Amino acid sequence: MLKAIQILGSSSSGFVSQIWRKGHSPLAFSSSAGARTRISTTPFSPRGTRCFRANRVYATGSKSESNPDAVSSSQVAVQSAGNVRKIKFCQWCGGPTKYDIPDGEEKMRAICTVCGKIAYQNPKMVVGCLIEHDKKVLLCKRNIEPSFGLWTLPAGYMEIGESAAEGATRETWEEAGAEVEVLSPFAQLDIPLIGQQTYIIFLAKLKRPHFAPGPESSECQLFSLDDIPFDSLAFSSIFVTLNLYIDDIRTGKLNFHYGTIKKRPGSSASDMCAFSLDHHLLS
Amino acid sequence: MLKAIQILGSSSSGFVSQIWRKGHSPLAFSSSAGARTRISTTPFSPRGTRCFRANRVYATGSKSESNPDAVSSSQVAVQSAGNVRKIKFCQWCGGPTKYDIPDGEEKMRAICTVCGKIAYQNPKMVVGCLIEHDKKVLLCKRNIEPSFGLWTLPAGYMEIGESAAEGATRETWEEAGAEVEVLSPFAQLDIPLIGQQTYIIFLAKLKRPHFAPGPESSECQLFSLDDIPFDSLAFSSIFVTLNLYIDDIRTGKLNFHYGTIKKRPGSSASDMCAFSLDHHLLS
Repeated sequence: MLKAIQILGSSSSGFVSQIWRKGHSPLAFSSSAGARTRISTTPFSPRGTRCFRANRVYATGSKSESNPDAVSSSQVAVQSAGNVRKIKFCQWCGGPTKYDIPDGEEKMRAICTVCGKIAYQNPKMVVGCLIEHDKKVLLCKRNIEPSFGLWTLPAGYMEIGESAAEGATRETWEEAGAEVEVLSPFAQLDIPLIGQQTYIIFLAKLKRPHFAPGPESSECQLFSLDDIPFDSLAFSSIFVTLNLYIDDIRTGKLNFHYGTIKKRPGSSASDMCAFSLDHHLLS
Repeated sequence: MLKAIQILGSSSSGFVSQIWRKGHSPLAFSSSAGARTRISTTPFSPRGTRCFRANRVYATGSKSESNPDAVSSSQVAVQSAGNVRKIKFCQWCGGPTKYDIPDGEEKMRAICTVCGKIAYQNPKMVVGCLIEHDKKVLLCKRNIEPSFGLWTLPAGYMEIGESAAEGATRETWEEAGAEVEVLSPFAQLDIPLIGQQTYIIFLAKLKRPHFAPGPESSECQLFSLDDIPFDSLAFSSIFVTLNLYIDDIRTGKLNFHYGTIKKRPGSSASDMCAFSLDHHLLS
């Protein structure tokens, strides 16, 4: 786990840019100076999208070489978040709020002008399952907006009182009518600028070979890896997750993936030309 | 990654119970029927606490055998959460709320009686760093409540507009005055019943061998693994994280760990006798 490896870096920083697309290996790269590289030569062929850029750091040891794209404490400033709605009233007493920096803090918060309570806004977790069955994966066609009619993994907001694995299992039951057993954590993908969400995806298996669309899905279907509808996926997080999975399957080693999806402000959830995967770390 | 392994299971389900304590191997276990086992015989010796129970599932493949402790879709009911405060007023219009199940949902929500908006409450992420330096780890003594005077990893709530890795880096700067580079994801620990939090911990290294306590810390110190103050840790999540880390170091393989910390209702944050680690999965 110690070595950081820069692959698929941005061309602006001198690294090789890479586009996940049909018939191309996702792992052509150049390493940063001094970093130990890890190379996969096995190609895979997800369909579609020629415009996705991934800026990856593969950490496969417990220490790493310096890496210009690695997250560092110089990046301590929290970036502005595009679509966070301002809180106008206190949830507890109903008093109007004002935005100010509370004592001992560094960030603007909504503070109640009556009772003084601070309203904290934090990112939410979306939890879901990547279900493997007979070398196929289970996808759901969305029957609701956003991304109506596009394909996704069963996933939804984690609720108070449940674990992430329980939430992923519940969402799979609700959206795909499938009883699953969670096998292992597979990916955490943060989307900090748009949506304020973190995707937590688990690998899972069907307890019985039965599934059926719930109210939020119009169709559920098992897809072989070569037939995944990459041109019709609902969200960039799903696009990235499925590409990482195919990549791991083809290279014979399932990893845990961490990364940040940087979306272009104003882009739609399903626009696969408007994001990059940054700070990709493996464990 | 395909085989699920039941280790350190609960005695009530017929598996071996295990207590992490000084001088004992954490990996004594019996396997569930049909599961492929993975055994570590290397002992480690964290101090203190004789009352922590871990119910682990080690998934080291892409499929697993059935496991009675695995998370399944039969567990779809979201458990009641002990300390979630009821929302009385709408944050957007100030109108009073009522608790009801919205159309198309299954869970009680606070709904504004004036504008009709639903107030969703979701778990929050606490992000932090486990910093390795010269075979030691960096801990901070808390200068604030809760757990004033006890030791912890630098960690805090993830903010809107940052990734988990950026948040962990920021918190490390704020609490330990240390500039770090995040190396790899190490653990996700959910605490669903008390606190409504999910801990996301990264392995990290110091960019420079400098650190100093921030306002929330009274002291920062590097500890060798044998000297970690297990009797004076601030939170169960930190206790579990450090035990898992020592376990991995001693066995020579750093994994990504997922698990659920089940706390006994009413127990304090630092009570190491009042929780278990359930559904422990590896990647």
